[in-house]
Amino acid sequence: MEDHVETSILFDFYESLFTEKQVDIMNLYYNENLSLAEISEITNTSRQAIHDIIKRCNKQLLDYEEKLKLMEISRNYNEMKKSILQSLNDIRDEYSDVSLIKKLEEIEENIKRVL
Amino acid sequence: MEDHVETSILFDFYESLFTEKQVDIMNLYYNENLSLAEISEITNTSRQAIHDIIKRCNKQLLDYEEKLKLMEISRNYNEMKKSILQSLNDIRDEYSDVSLIKKLEEIEENIKRVL
Repeated sequence: MEDHVETSILFDFYESLFTEKQVDIMNLYYNENLSLAEISEITNTSRQAIHDIIKRCNKQLLDYEEKLKLMEISRNYNEMKKSILQSLNDIRDEYSDVSLIKKLEEIEENIKRVL
Repeated sequence: MEDHVETSILFDFYESLFTEKQVDIMNLYYNENLSLAEISEITNTSRQAIHDIIKRCNKQLLDYEEKLKLMEISRNYNEMKKSILQSLNDIRDEYSDVSLIKKLEEIEENIKRVL
């Protein structure tokens, strides 16, 4: 199985494309970290079926990411956002003009609110 | 059928999730603006089948957007981006400090490059 944390993050992007049962099982496995046996008992489904569902969801998940790249785009975006905020912060540290600082702070707030 | 331009824009976001045949037909209909009869002739498929494929793709497209909201997110994001760029531009117009203006221009360039 894939790395739990990575899969859990990836699943957040595409969760809406899965069925309720798939979402339940994926959450129990990747977020609650339950074993196949525990999930099998809770959901009244065979251990083998749970295993197959998780495997199929993983395959589907990687396929969605390969096609839509939502996680990749989001990561690149967040890095760029961090760097832009840092640059604005550097200007604020360098200048003492109160009006300028206020304006830059407002822009930073807007950038933080985006996505 | 849905509005052509709107559907064409929406399809750009989710095209990768459709089959090659579906993509071909959707492009001929929504981008090249061919009639069902023309598409039927080009693709050697019955007019009724073309109609059904376009209808099914539209349904699927609206379902994807309802779930992932990529177009909605992208539009909100672009509006916010425009407003942030305008604010940075206003500061540049107001101040004459060459070093400050250069720094702000660099930030604007970075913001334009994001997504």
